[in-house]
Amino acid sequence: MIPPIIPFVGKSGSGKTTFLEKLVAALVDRGRRVGVVKHDVHGFELDQPGKDTYRLRQAGAVRVAISAPRQFALLGEVEEELELPDLAARYLADVDIVLAEGYKRSPLKKVEVCRAARSRELLCAPEELLAVVSDLPLQLPCPVFGLDDVAGVAGLLEELLAGPAPSPAAGVSLRVDGREVPLKPFIQEVLAGAVRGMLTGLRDADGQEVELRIR
Amino acid sequence: MIPPIIPFVGKSGSGKTTFLEKLVAALVDRGRRVGVVKHDVHGFELDQPGKDTYRLRQAGAVRVAISAPRQFALLGEVEEELELPDLAARYLADVDIVLAEGYKRSPLKKVEVCRAARSRELLCAPEELLAVVSDLPLQLPCPVFGLDDVAGVAGLLEELLAGPAPSPAAGVSLRVDGREVPLKPFIQEVLAGAVRGMLTGLRDADGQEVELRIR
Repeated sequence: MIPPIIPFVGKSGSGKTTFLEKLVAALVDRGRRVGVVKHDVHGFELDQPGKDTYRLRQAGAVRVAISAPRQFALLGEVEEELELPDLAARYLADVDIVLAEGYKRSPLKKVEVCRAARSRELLCAPEELLAVVSDLPLQLPCPVFGLDDVAGVAGLLEELLAGPAPSPAAGVSLRVDGREVPLKPFIQEVLAGAVRGMLTGLRDADGQEVELRIR
Repeated sequence: MIPPIIPFVGKSGSGKTTFLEKLVAALVDRGRRVGVVKHDVHGFELDQPGKDTYRLRQAGAVRVAISAPRQFALLGEVEEELELPDLAARYLADVDIVLAEGYKRSPLKKVEVCRAARSRELLCAPEELLAVVSDLPLQLPCPVFGLDDVAGVAGLLEELLAGPAPSPAAGVSLRVDGREVPLKPFIQEVLAGAVRGMLTGLRDADGQEVELRIR
């Protein structure tokens, strides 16, 4: 399932990252699993020359993952830049919401951060906007929040997420050939009921969390 | 589909990374898309304090991605270390083969690198081995390649890649509360048939490899 994706745009120096930092913390406080995508138009280097992972990438590996007890990383080469929804579907399917920094040209509805000291003009047309965060007295068809109104924006995003956080007690997730397949609650119940039913009476198969792989 | 996963194990200093580096290049030369997983038992830091991505992770984002025109990166926090097949299914489904460094305890068949100057004893029991790369005159039921015989190992892996896909009847695995539950072939067939049957007609649920989690 692709989580909702909200691009945060604004001129450089408008305070996007600072706002996002507080917003992430506010959503995490509300129990949300938050993913972030940073759009880097130039290219970046997280790896360091000489490291094993660097050497293996230099040797031509298109994906290099590092897995540790509490964290993992994936470094990938692509021939064409990943589109934001594609990136989210492939790599961020296990979060509740994705906040993106940048992606001005995305067709998704955006939040624009606009600080008077940096610019008095918006980058986005009104119809592209989900909300604006600004210290300017703007009249717009979308909500306008103050530069410090993290709670206001968090509340708007919570409305988007529609309803309480999904309870892990009733979760069925399905992946087919590595892709997450969205399941309606009814289908989840049917699948969970049928599989649990089949496991009844099977030795050692009594438990809460069931993970089944079929190749 | 989960690509074939081959863990390369060996004592530290046995030359695993150097061998893998050459092997990756050899497979890439043969037109393969190669993924690598490095097992890091301690923890690592690719990010740098002060960077935007670092700040957003500190704020509590469980996944932080960076996307650039020719590359991307994903940094993730996990509560429990990702199992190698799970990691490959989620994040490396788009490569032809995954070479892992480490994962001595994985139940997958491994290639052990053993250099006489470092150790004269193998870490793995013969039945755990797909092959050995060594400068020792070893007598084993699996193929033994010289430390420089990258082409030999590449050829063996190519045979694996060219082999028949695993029979669907023999590929059902079940974990309950994290424990592997052994399944007789008949039960595997029943489970696979029932689950595949339920997925018929479900949108986007058509495919070879099915992974179902019920909590």
